[in-house]
Formats: sequence, C-alpha cells, structure tokens
Amino acid sequence: MKLYSYFRSSAGWRVRIVLALKGLDFDLIPVHLLRGGGEHLGAEYAKTNPQRLVPALEDDGAVFAQSLAIMEYLEETHPTPSLLPGDAQDRARIRAFCQAIACEIHPLNNLRVLKYLVRELGCDEDAKLAWYAHWIQEGFRPVEKLLEGRDGPYCFGAEPTLADACLVPQVFNAERFNVDLSAFPKVQAVNAACLAHEAIAATVPALQPDAE
Amino acid sequence: MKLYSYFRSSAGWRVRIVLALKGLDFDLIPVHLLRGGGEHLGAEYAKTNPQRLVPALEDDGAVFAQSLAIMEYLEETHPTPSLLPGDAQDRARIRAFCQAIACEIHPLNNLRVLKYLVRELGCDEDAKLAWYAHWIQEGFRPVEKLLEGRDGPYCFGAEPTLADACLVPQVFNAERFNVDLSAFPKVQAVNAACLAHEAIAATVPALQPDAE
Repeated sequence: MKLYSYFRSSAGWRVRIVLALKGLDFDLIPVHLLRGGGEHLGAEYAKTNPQRLVPALEDDGAVFAQSLAIMEYLEETHPTPSLLPGDAQDRARIRAFCQAIACEIHPLNNLRVLKYLVRELGCDEDAKLAWYAHWIQEGFRPVEKLLEGRDGPYCFGAEPTLADACLVPQVFNAERFNVDLSAFPKVQAVNAACLAHEAIAATVPALQPDAE
Repeated sequence: MKLYSYFRSSAGWRVRIVLALKGLDFDLIPVHLLRGGGEHLGAEYAKTNPQRLVPALEDDGAVFAQSLAIMEYLEETHPTPSLLPGDAQDRARIRAFCQAIACEIHPLNNLRVLKYLVRELGCDEDAKLAWYAHWIQEGFRPVEKLLEGRDGPYCFGAEPTLADACLVPQVFNAERFNVDLSAFPKVQAVNAACLAHEAIAATVPALQPDAE
C-alpha cells in the first residue's frame, strides 16, 4: 500500500494511526501542502487523486480518497483488530464521534479555509487565530460530552477505535495553535492515553520521514 | 423511529432520502433552526442530542447523531435495498463521494458559519454569498470529476446509493443561493434523475410537514 500524505496533515495522520493499529506496512509518498503553492494542487497529483487533497491510499491497483472512507476501507479489508467494534448502535456512536471532528471541526480550520480568510476576507493574524480557536472549542464541547461517563482510557473503552484516530490529530492541531483546552479534560486524558500507546506514538508528525 | 430534523437542513434531508429509499416509516420531530435563536441550541434538545445539531435519529431506545453515521446505521440495520453496494473498493468510492460533500462543502456553508462571517468578521451580504458560492464551486469540481465516465443515471449506476443522498441536498442549497452550476453538468444530471425518482421526490423540503 502507498499512502500519499503530508506529515502535518491531520486527515493523513488519522489514516497513519489506523494503519499502525492494524500493523499494516505501507510506503509513504510525501505530498507537500505548502511547497510551490501546494503539491496537492498540481497536475501530477491530480492524476492520483482528482480531489486534490491528502491523504490518498493506493491499494490493489486503485486509489482511495477521503480519510474516513479510507479508514472504513482498511477496517473492511483488514478487520483484525477491529477499530469499529460492537453492534450497529456501538458502531453508529463511534462513527458519529469521528464525524463530530471530521465534519464539524476540521473542515473549518483547513489550510485552504485559513488562506481564504486572509486573502479574500482580509483577516489579520488575530482574527484568523480567533476563528481557529472558535471552531475547535465549539467542536470539542460536544466531543467532551460524548466522553462523559466513559471509563477510558480510550474514547470507547479499553482499546483504541477510529474515534481515537480522529481525536489525536485534532488535539495536536489545537495545541499547535495554542488553543485553550482546559474545558476539555476528558479529551486531553484520552489524547494522553493515545500518545502513550506504542503504535500510535510512532505516528506523530515529528517522526514522519517528511517531517521538517 | 423518530427523526429530529428541520425541513431545510441538508444533513436531515440526506437521512430522509435513505429512510425513503429503504421504505422505512418514521415520526418527524421538527427542530426549528432559526426560531428563538435556534431550537437545536436549547437545553431541551441537548437532552436528545448533546451535539446540538440536526438531524438525530431515535431508534430502539437510543439516539444517534451525525447524518453519515445515521445513514451507515440504517444501512446496517436495514440492509435491503443496499445503498452501499459492492465490494470494499466500491464502498470506499461511495463513502469518499459522500465525504467530498459532507466534509468538504457542507461544513463551510452551515448556518453557524455564515453567522460567524457576518457577526464576527463583519462580512456583508455580497461577501457572504461569495463565500457560499466559492466552497460549492470548489467542492463540486472534484465531485464532477468523480462522476465523469460513469453512465448514471445515479452517482454510482442504475440505483441510488448514499452518494445520491448527499448530492441532492447540496445541489438544492447551491440553487437556493443562485450558485452557478453550469460547470457541473454531471452533477446536475444526477440531481435531475434523483428528483424524478418517486421515493426521493417525496423527500424535498417543500413537502415536509414543517415546511414554511
């Protein structure tokens, strides 16, 4: 398998966590999101992924886009260990958790959105950072609620699931932009547990071959 | 089953399409997104869905959030007709299509985002509409590419799938805000086919009990 990604892409990181938890080997093909205006926007990468976003996963002669779809694909093709365990209700809760991050927080703080704020709306650095923090804090409030009453150490119990694969990169982004997370102790505790997990620890951006 | 939704919520509409295609009965519980600052933000609705978003689906004593998670739940609990057919690769493509809309377009044009643009960033009506159109056109470009070379009439062939359930409400939103869709003939053709489908036709916002 080949993973097209960028060390700091949080959607790419989600997939790295899933690959690591399932013990799957892959070749990393770095796609630099900043260099030359973004290698992902170039004609070459468009041949691989017409959506021009990272990550993309190449497997068995085909290329797949969208991190959550890739994660489900890996779950279907490599079901052990399951990262989407339980019955239909359990699975719906794990998926809803993933989407509370992947559909409600991350899209608003994507690089291309931040660029639009600055270039088209004339936002200064403070306004950009306030936007960034706003959507993380708005978005982590329900995520924290979803973790209340749960024992941990991971989002859905004793083993990591797709939910944890979504949580960790989002917390990393928040910390990178100095967003105050003091209102989200459960989010922070799960994140710490994940980063202490051997397989997940190896997936952090700083340890990737394309890290800067 | 109970569906908490708002007639014009496009995430709610996705779920209505899935319920209709599977021939499932449900009670609609309207949640008005504008009245009194938004009923979904009130304490009452938070008891049902702590994420304070519509839609939510109540089934078998539990409540599920996030439209894509609900759609997968309905697919697992009511597998016939399948709206996520084929092998793991086919399913990955359908899910990626869904997410190209649900993760890349819709979150940026949500009501709460438009409110932030106006209230916090001081955007005027023109800037707001330009933002709205920008993300639809940016987002439909790869969606159109995903439809190229496909025969239709639906996104993935002769029968509607979860992809169509995501496409139709997004096209409706685009048309409602007069976004130019002339660059996306495949998107428009699939949308027309869907609206001519008897079950889908009954799900349009104007026909819902809470329509205004």
